[in-house]
Amino acid sequence: MEDIIDFVLELDKLKGVTRKVRPLGLDRYENPAEHSWQIALFALALAPHAVGNPDVARVVSLLLVHDVGEIDTGDTMAFVEEGVDQRKAAERVAVERIFGLLPNGQGTGLRDLWLEFEEEETAEARFAHAIDRAMPVLLNLANDGQSWRENGISHDRVVKRVRDPIQRGAPALWDYIESELGKARERGIFGA
Amino acid sequence: MEDIIDFVLELDKLKGVTRKVRPLGLDRYENPAEHSWQIALFALALAPHAVGNPDVARVVSLLLVHDVGEIDTGDTMAFVEEGVDQRKAAERVAVERIFGLLPNGQGTGLRDLWLEFEEEETAEARFAHAIDRAMPVLLNLANDGQSWRENGISHDRVVKRVRDPIQRGAPALWDYIESELGKARERGIFGA
Repeated sequence: MEDIIDFVLELDKLKGVTRKVRPLGLDRYENPAEHSWQIALFALALAPHAVGNPDVARVVSLLLVHDVGEIDTGDTMAFVEEGVDQRKAAERVAVERIFGLLPNGQGTGLRDLWLEFEEEETAEARFAHAIDRAMPVLLNLANDGQSWRENGISHDRVVKRVRDPIQRGAPALWDYIESELGKARERGIFGA
Repeated sequence: MEDIIDFVLELDKLKGVTRKVRPLGLDRYENPAEHSWQIALFALALAPHAVGNPDVARVVSLLLVHDVGEIDTGDTMAFVEEGVDQRKAAERVAVERIFGLLPNGQGTGLRDLWLEFEEEETAEARFAHAIDRAMPVLLNLANDGQSWRENGISHDRVVKRVRDPIQRGAPALWDYIESELGKARERGIFGA
């Protein structure tokens, strides 16, 4: 029992990691814990639009674990392309450590969920990626492009970064976002 | 699609609701969104100790939706016993509104999960309650009794409030917590 409690208290640290987007109307940056909660519910709500009829319960589990490695590595904006391999390797080490806190090899299942998300090969992982990529775009669209402005991200860079994963997992969501990004470009809410 | 996005952006407001416990080492109060994420993973980790062999995927869903009504009502400490019925009725109205944002009656399933949690009759709901009640206790035990001190909560009041739900859903967790609460009383970390 003590090992399980140590694990759960270790998870608490994810609440202190900062992402680049601010929650709507709040004067602080979002953390990956609340982000993971939001996209897990997004998955439940968007399930009828998923490609390949994924097992939604597993999609939820993938989303709950996908950012746990950031306890050790911190968050890096999806637009930062340099050093991706090193960052992913560091996250892999982190999840081995964190899920390894659980007794009797119980963490293996959670580690495998994290790997499944990363490998992006199953219908579940593809749908999970679509949602994870879409969420900060939707917040920025509702937030006058806050993190795009702060980080100098252009309309084209957003499209280039998120189109493929969103389209692959939830094409109807991409159609909606593509149209909204077009309108947002006319409003001029991008950073470059 | 627009209705689903409206729903997901409405969820963002839960990040701005404050609970009474602070995340370990952080100078702010916890919000129900990050709390819900943490206890969903707690459920996955603690599943071998659950009573009645609950469907863990449904336990996770119960925990993800259980605080959504607080978007409208705010959080009330579990120790406040006055006005419980009115608060619950207000939360019920809130979840009808929030899940009602989803198209085609899709919110009914989520609303039913919220009700199942509240009614605390299924093995899933009982295990979910055990975890929800245990989490702030575990944070307080690791946090020198921060919210107990701030709100004048005694050792006996904690035990009275959390023993039955934790014992019913996860007795081994209660055994652990009961022992830790005893040690904490000797350290004098309670508020009264």
